[in-house]
Amino acid sequence: MKAKIIITPKKAVLDPQGKTVQSALEHMGYAGVAGVHVGKYVEIDLAPGTDRAAAQQAINEACHRFLSNPVIEDYKLEIE
Amino acid sequence: MKAKIIITPKKAVLDPQGKTVQSALEHMGYAGVAGVHVGKYVEIDLAPGTDRAAAQQAINEACHRFLSNPVIEDYKLEIE
Repeated sequence: MKAKIIITPKKAVLDPQGKTVQSALEHMGYAGVAGVHVGKYVEIDLAPGTDRAAAQQAINEACHRFLSNPVIEDYKLEIE
Repeated sequence: MKAKIIITPKKAVLDPQGKTVQSALEHMGYAGVAGVHVGKYVEIDLAPGTDRAAAQQAINEACHRFLSNPVIEDYKLEIE
C-alpha cells in the first residue's frame, strides 16, 4: 500500500519557483502556458498489513505536523 | 486544462531526502513506514483552447529537456 502526498503552495502565496519555470518555458518557445505551480511530492510505502483507515489518519496528522507547512501550503493525500 | 507532472528519483538512485523523512517519521512514532520517496510536483495551467495532443507532446519534450533530469529521475505526465 502506498500513500501519495502532493504538497503545493496555497494559491494566495507567491510561488517564485513556479514563476521561474513559467518564464523559462516561455523563453524556450513553449506557448500557451497560463501558469505554473511547483510543489513537493512524497510517496510513503506502507508495510504490508497496515490498516488503511489508521494509516490515513496517521499520515494526515504527519502532513499537518511535519510534512507540510499548513500556513502556506495545501496538501492532498491519496492512499492506494 | 492542466498538466500534472510528478518527478521522482529513479529507484536505483540514492534518495537522501526520502531516507531523512523516513527516519524522522519513525522517530516521531509513526510505525509501519517501509520506505519514503521524495520528488517534485509541477502543475502547468494551459491556456484555454490548447490542443491536447500537441500540449502532451510539447510538455513531454519539456520534461526531457528541462523539467526533469532523465539520468536520475523518472517523470509521469497527466493532462486533465
